[in-house]
Order: sequence, then C-alpha cells, then structure tokens
Amino acid sequence: MAVDNRKADASVDSLHRIFTVPEAPNSTLGRIEKEISENLNAFLQTHIAAREKPLTEIEKDFSSADIPENPSFVSDHTAFLLDKLVAQSVHTSAPSFIGHMTSALPYFLMPLSKIMIGLNQNLVKIETSKAFTPLERQVLGMLHNLIFHEDNAFYDQWMHSADHSLGAFCSGGTVANITALWVARNNALKPDGEFRGVAQEGLFRAMKHYGYDDLAVLVSERGHYSLKKAADVLGIGRDCLVPIKTDGNNRVCIDDLKSTLFSLKERNIKPFAIVGVAGTTETGNIDPLEELADIAEEHDCHFHVDAAWGGATLMSNKYRTLLKGIERADSVTIDAHKQLYVPMGAGMVIFKNPTSAAAIEHHAEYILREGSKDLGSHTLEGSRSGMAMLLFASLNIISRPGYELLINNSIEKARYFAERIDAHPDFELVSEPELCLLTYRYVPEATQRALAIATPEQKAELLASLNDLTQFIQKRQRESGKSFVSRTRINPEKWDRYLTTVFRVVLANPLTTNQILQDVLSEQQLLALQSEISYPKIMALTEEILSH
Amino acid sequence: MAVDNRKADASVDSLHRIFTVPEAPNSTLGRIEKEISENLNAFLQTHIAAREKPLTEIEKDFSSADIPENPSFVSDHTAFLLDKLVAQSVHTSAPSFIGHMTSALPYFLMPLSKIMIGLNQNLVKIETSKAFTPLERQVLGMLHNLIFHEDNAFYDQWMHSADHSLGAFCSGGTVANITALWVARNNALKPDGEFRGVAQEGLFRAMKHYGYDDLAVLVSERGHYSLKKAADVLGIGRDCLVPIKTDGNNRVCIDDLKSTLFSLKERNIKPFAIVGVAGTTETGNIDPLEELADIAEEHDCHFHVDAAWGGATLMSNKYRTLLKGIERADSVTIDAHKQLYVPMGAGMVIFKNPTSAAAIEHHAEYILREGSKDLGSHTLEGSRSGMAMLLFASLNIISRPGYELLINNSIEKARYFAERIDAHPDFELVSEPELCLLTYRYVPEATQRALAIATPEQKAELLASLNDLTQFIQKRQRESGKSFVSRTRINPEKWDRYLTTVFRVVLANPLTTNQILQDVLSEQQLLALQSEISYPKIMALTEEILSH
Repeated sequence: MAVDNRKADASVDSLHRIFTVPEAPNSTLGRIEKEISENLNAFLQTHIAAREKPLTEIEKDFSSADIPENPSFVSDHTAFLLDKLVAQSVHTSAPSFIGHMTSALPYFLMPLSKIMIGLNQNLVKIETSKAFTPLERQVLGMLHNLIFHEDNAFYDQWMHSADHSLGAFCSGGTVANITALWVARNNALKPDGEFRGVAQEGLFRAMKHYGYDDLAVLVSERGHYSLKKAADVLGIGRDCLVPIKTDGNNRVCIDDLKSTLFSLKERNIKPFAIVGVAGTTETGNIDPLEELADIAEEHDCHFHVDAAWGGATLMSNKYRTLLKGIERADSVTIDAHKQLYVPMGAGMVIFKNPTSAAAIEHHAEYILREGSKDLGSHTLEGSRSGMAMLLFASLNIISRPGYELLINNSIEKARYFAERIDAHPDFELVSEPELCLLTYRYVPEATQRALAIATPEQKAELLASLNDLTQFIQKRQRESGKSFVSRTRINPEKWDRYLTTVFRVVLANPLTTNQILQDVLSEQQLLALQSEISYPKIMALTEEILSH
Repeated sequence: MAVDNRKADASVDSLHRIFTVPEAPNSTLGRIEKEISENLNAFLQTHIAAREKPLTEIEKDFSSADIPENPSFVSDHTAFLLDKLVAQSVHTSAPSFIGHMTSALPYFLMPLSKIMIGLNQNLVKIETSKAFTPLERQVLGMLHNLIFHEDNAFYDQWMHSADHSLGAFCSGGTVANITALWVARNNALKPDGEFRGVAQEGLFRAMKHYGYDDLAVLVSERGHYSLKKAADVLGIGRDCLVPIKTDGNNRVCIDDLKSTLFSLKERNIKPFAIVGVAGTTETGNIDPLEELADIAEEHDCHFHVDAAWGGATLMSNKYRTLLKGIERADSVTIDAHKQLYVPMGAGMVIFKNPTSAAAIEHHAEYILREGSKDLGSHTLEGSRSGMAMLLFASLNIISRPGYELLINNSIEKARYFAERIDAHPDFELVSEPELCLLTYRYVPEATQRALAIATPEQKAELLASLNDLTQFIQKRQRESGKSFVSRTRINPEKWDRYLTTVFRVVLANPLTTNQILQDVLSEQQLLALQSEISYPKIMALTEEILSH
C-alpha cells in the first residue's frame, strides 16, 4: 500500500497505485536495481557482510509471527532487507566460495529473469503460458537430444505431441528423481487383466495382484538422499532403497549389485529400478553406467541415472565419454541450476521413451483436457513458473561449445587443485577429481609420518582428532567470510573405511583463479593453528609416536 | 559466450565476460529492462501480440532439438524472445483477462525479484541460504498465525525450532497438497511396536501390520485434481480418493460424507484424511469447515483444508468468517501466487501442530544434519529458491489491511458482476460468487423462456447446443485478444445436474473496472451471433418451441 514520498493510505485508489506506479529510478529500490544491473558481483560484495552473525542473532530480526497491521514504505522495507537479509545471505557467486554447487550467473540472465517474472506465466497449461509451452517442450527436446541423440524425425514426431512427453521441468533434482521413480513404479505395477494398475488401485492391491513380497530400488551407497525421500513418498519405504557398496573411487560395485539382485529375487522381492549416479554429491564420481544398463536390461528394471550434477558434462565433447552408457537410461535427472548456470529452481527429468510418462498422466475437467498439450498432465507439480525460458536463452547465448569451455575449465581446475594439494606436505587429497569435485584434509606432514607407524589405538585417536580439526577449520573459515569450502564425511578405503571428515570443493565458478585456490590452502593452514584443542592434541600425539 | 558488439569467441577469457560484463543500459536488453521498470503493463501491452497465433504455428519457432553449436549475441536472442515468445505469451496482468487465478503484480516485486535471483540462495539448507532460512520460517509463522492465531509464546517456542516445522514453502498448491497427505499417511501408519512405520517399511507392510483392507481420503467432488495426483504418487491409488456429493452451492454434503465414512469402515477401509475445500477451483465455494472438523475429530482423521485459492480471504476481517473452522485443520494449503499477489511458484502447506512434519523428516550426511535448522529436512522438494522473500516483502509493504482491501474489493466486484449478469436478459448466472469467482453463460432471453416449456428431448437438444455456443464464444473471445474468460463444465442442480459448459471469471485483478466487465458481456453477445452452427440452431429450436 505504501509508495515512497506519499502517505500510506487505505483506499481503492491506493490499491491501484501499488499495481501501476513505477519505481522512481532514484528511489532506494531504483538505485539498487541499477547497481545490480551494472555489476552484480560488486553489489553483492558491497552488501553482503564479510563476517557472519550467529544464526540465533539473525533470527531476532525475523522473530514476529504477526502480519503487520501497518504498511511499510517500499524504501524503508528495502533498507531493512538490505541490512538484515541481503547482508546476511550467502555470496554464492563469489569466486572464493568453492563449497557449493551454486555458482555465478551469466549477466544476461538478470534482465531476462525480470521479463520472466513480469510475464508471470503458469506452465501448467497452454491457456496460461501459450508460447512458453512449446518453448519448454523444445528445451526438454534439446536435453533429450544431448543425452539420447535421436534423429530429427524422432523429435519432429514427439517433441510437441499432445499425448507424449520427453520429460518434465521441475523445481529441482529431488522432484525429478521422485518423478522418475514414480514412473518406474507405475510401469512396474501397471494394469494387468482385471487389475487397473497401481496409479488407480494403490500399492497394497498392486502387491497382492503381482504377488511380490516387497519392492526394491538399487543404488550405490553414495546415492543422493532424495532417493530415500522418493522411496518414502512413493510408499515403497526407505528400507526398499537398497544401498550397494562402492569401490575406492566411490563407484558402485557391480559384483555386489549382482549378488544383491540375486538375493532379492530369492526372497520374492521385485527390484523395479536401478539408479546410476553420474556425479556423486560428495565426490563427483560416476558409476559404470554401461554395466548398469546391461544389468538393468537383463533384470527388466527401469534404469534411472541421477545426473543432477554431472549431466552437464555431456556438453563437453572432450569429457562426455565419462558418462558413457547414459544413453541407455530410461530416465535421467539433470539440474540446470547447477552446471548449466541458470538460477535456482530449474530441474528436469528426461525420459528416453516418449510414452514412459503416460504412467503418470492426469486429466481434469477445466484443465489438462485429454488431447491438450498442457504440460501439467505429465508433471508432479501443478502451477509452475517459466524458468525454462532462462535455460533456453542460456543454451542459445552460451551454446554447446561455450558450455564445453565451462565444463572443461572446471574439470581441469579441479585437477590442478588436486595436484597442488598432493604436492603440499601438510595436506592430503582424499578423493581424486573425476568431475570438478574433490575432497581433502589438512594433515601436518609429521602427522602423516606418525600415522604410518602408529598402533591401532594411536591411529584411532589421531584420526578422531583430525576429524575435529577439519571441522574446526571449515567452520572458522566460513565464519571469517573470505572464502568457503564445505565439509562432509566419507569412508575412504585408504583409511580402512574410517568415517573421515573432509573438506569438499566444487570448482564450477569460472571466476575462481589458481591464486584463490592457493589462498584457500594458506588460510586453512593458518586457521589450524588457532585450534586450541585438536591441533595441540594432534601435535603432542604425533611427537609421542615419532619419538619412539 | 556472445557479448554485444564483440566477436563471439571461445576462450577462457570470453567465459569470464559472460559472468562479469554488465549489460549496457542502451543495449536491447538494457532498454527492455528500463521499459519494464517504468511501466510493466505498458511493456506487456506493447509487446504481447493482440491476436494469437495457432499453437501449431508457434511450435514452428520452437521446433529444433539441436543445442546450438554457435553462440547467439545477447541482443539477437533478446529480439527473438520478444518476437516469438513474449509476443505469444499470455497477458496475465491485463485487467480484461479475468479468467485466470494469476493477476497483476505489485510494482515493487519486480526489482525485489531481481535481488532474489541475483542472490541465488538455495533454501534447502542454512549453509546456502543463511538469513533466508529464518525469513522463510517467519513467513510460515505469519501464515500459521493468520490461520491458527496461537499466542506469542507459541511462536517464540516453535517458529525457529530446529526439530519442528510450522509448514513448508513449495512451488505450488499441488506440492503442498501432496506434502499434507504425505504427512497424514505417515502419521496414520506410524511406527507401532515392531513395525517401524510406513516411511521406513512401505505401504504394503504397513497395511498388513495395521490389518486394513484399504485406505481412503475423502473430499468433495469439487476437490482439486492435484488430490488425485497425490493419491497416485503416495501409493494410495486414485480410487481411494473418495468423492463426496455436493449441494447446489458446490459444498460437500455432510450426510453423504457421514454415510460414506460408515460404509468405508464396514468394509475395513481406513479413512485417514478428510479434505475440506476453501475456494473450489471452478466456482470459489467453501465447504462447511466447522462441520468437517467435527467429523474428522470424531473419526480420528487428519483434517486438511485446501485453501490454495481461498486462504488469502483470512486477511479480510470482514470476510474471514467464510472460512470458519479452518483453525481446526491439521494442515492447510495456501498459494501466495494467487490472492497474495506474488509471482508464480509460491505455495505453502501450514501445519497446526509443529510436530506433524516429523513424520516426513529426512536427514543426510553432508546436509540436513540432525539438529540443524535446514529447511530441507521437512520439505518434499530439495533445492529451492528464495521466493519466501517476495511474500515477506508483500506482507510488510501491503500489510494486512492492504490485503483486506484487495480481498474485499474482489469479492464485491464479483457480486456487482453477478448482479449485472442477473439483470441482463440474455445471460444466466450459473453459480453465485461466494469469493470472487462466478460462472455464467449466454442464453438469449427467448431461449430461456423456451427452456421452461420444452419437452425433455427439446431441452436436451437446446442444452447441448448452448454448451457448443458457450465454447465457441469463449474460444473466439480468447483468440481476438481483447479480453479473456475461462470456461469449465459443471453440473448445476438447477439443470438436473446436466453437464453444463460455462464461462468462469476470477475477479482478483484490482485494475479490472466495472466498465471492463460490461464490455466483456457486450463482446460475448456480439460473438454469439458469429456462430454459424450453434446459434442458428438454438434460435430455430427456440422459435419452434415458443410457437407451439
């Protein structure tokens, strides 16, 4: 209701104003817009506070559950947002923030986003999205082509077909994975004789009809947690997501997969889907997709590839072979807000077969009428925004060779960083980069020597303290606000599967330089010394071991 | 890779440019941004083509599945988007487009959206969203307060509690409804003795453990189609969504609900959720929520209210009593991109009890650690954008009394339009507005008289032709591009439940004037005459009936 320089009032006339009065270019909001347009990075650098406040402090600014009874002026509220929200947000596009899968955004996406939001289309149906519907179908076709490279005749026939779907655009990889397994479940328990299918009759009747004692989805123990969520949502149960052991490179063990399949069948459990991971969240490794495809085929399982992170690698002619076998998947998850560099909220699931999604087709009276091309008849979500436009623009403006440059650059930067870590006496590379992810930790050189000769008890003690130290360094580095790496826990073969806390870096930001990487290591080395508990403990133990 | 006025090249340097070079203010994109900032409506009015192209024509512009091998210049691609996409999109904020639930956006949301997108936070966890997490929790608290009005101590205790959740922000009402029924299902089939709950063991084991023959969710036959989708996704099966008859005002029949519950229990079917509709999609009617709450309590059912459309009415002190009983719901769906006037992609589910969502809690190693305040541990979606910021700003800038004005204005405009339709000899009001939705159709005065004395056969023929005519008028009106009403089919008591095609209008746009409404009717009256089949047929039959 409030407009700058005017008394806020409550009348029908004032209603009209908030929908029609433009923002003056020299108002607070107008100035901010200009700043963002001119240099997003500088805007964020200036407005995001270097030192973060503790969360409990931030919460104080967001503590009232009352909906205001008095309107705020736009300028006052904008000042509040800058001071309390923007200042305490995460500078996801900073070149020294190498712990997230969210990177910098190409500059042209900022004004295009504004067009998208201003148009405010709803992609659930043609009636509220018109040209956005064919655009989204084309984007799904392009991604389908990237993965499955069918011929032109295929896309001419299916891309805009009312009763078919090459995939679904959605908010992110989680919904994409749920959608893929939803399709897989419904196809595995499809109509059969008198039985009208799981979609219609539900899982309980489906299981009784098919006579299975249980269902199973198989995925490596490095599978994304969203798969467990999917198993819960879909009524399969988390227990039925069967984790398969991985090798030293975080890739699924084929032998273990085979013996698990055998044992499931012995117990009358139906494995209906095998999931391959193309870019594990923690280490960026890729399962042997070709072998998984063979096994899925042999066992009549839906083969889904979770390439939320790694899928963009297909843009690189140099590295796409890393994902060899993905073209045999029945469905693939890929996130455009990761390595395709569009803003948050752009996931996709792509189906090899244009008829797959019929298993989840829905219609209604006023919408999604049979024979319509409404996208909503094959998606889990209903109303959705026109995010596909931003991916469409990026695919055209950056083009495949541009994406290839980005991907190659990231992978090669990760290799460079891995070499630096390897060469550094006080750091230990824990997982080699296959894509642009790697993990490592700080282990003083003397401690590395001590570990080699320590008794099991000493070793256990050292490893525990090293975990504490890694955690300490990571937190302190984040809080100091200059740079950011994330942390996770993995169980490397090298340390007999001991649960090890590690730094995790994702080198997807094209603005990250070698110097920044060097500085991250230097900062971590200095921060280690600030630890008043774990560092002295490690050094004392190291000395004790080495002195014997 | 392309930057205006520069040769597109493929080098690491060019990579950097697309992430750092700002848009020149007098470039194509720069000019568009300025236009949008200065007057969004005028921009849309200028760039959206008045006459729409047939979809098959539009598809030709979006027909290649090839990812370009050559970069486009930003200016060229922007021109393409303006010409082929924007021109053929839907002017959702036009005051004469009164057929959608998407309305005009307050002007201040355009620049704020740009900040949101530039920050590119990921709300799945604190680490990638920081202050956005408490902000979203506060927004959920505010909506909780709007619905359930607990006291300050309640919100102090729960709003920012790590292990609790007052709701979930999501892409829209569909995900909100799925989330609500997911919680309801998991709580109905919760861990019990040796049984570890449906989330862990799945639906098949759960049903065997509890000894039910089936499950059921009860909702009026006017329930949104997303509930059927939810029943499919959740493994309950669409059959188990049991539709209950409605009265002449599209409200659920309580007696029918009671007898259905009785009969389900006779057949050992567990009704675990009752859904009340607060704002039916087609007619905007509200179920008797108080009575539904009583029944849900008596039968130990989860009581969910789908207030995706009508929830915003709670902002109006004058009309909030229409939703009386909603405060007894276990969960409520509400869409902010509808009557809370924020851009597409902002749904919410709110839980009365802060512990409800524990039934869908998920954790992982690198994220959503136990005890963390990461929002992702209680949401169906994973990575999500910071849309909550836009709702937060609107709640502060518009404030509750501002929203009340918008809501009251809409409801009263619908009543005015209903009166106009009633007073018009050639139109028939089919459903009275309870909120700001109504349905009607064009029936020439003479035909109305003929219908009253027609034989059953004549009546059937007339009604069928009237359906055709309504469809003809609606399509023609949409295509001519001046104004838009939607259409649906309902079965009014008045016409013995005959499936009747009707115009549907949603009067949520504050810029829609009485004159525009008058013009919509005049245009429809003229368009009727253009029908070469149904109109002459109706007139001939009318004459025949009246002449006897």
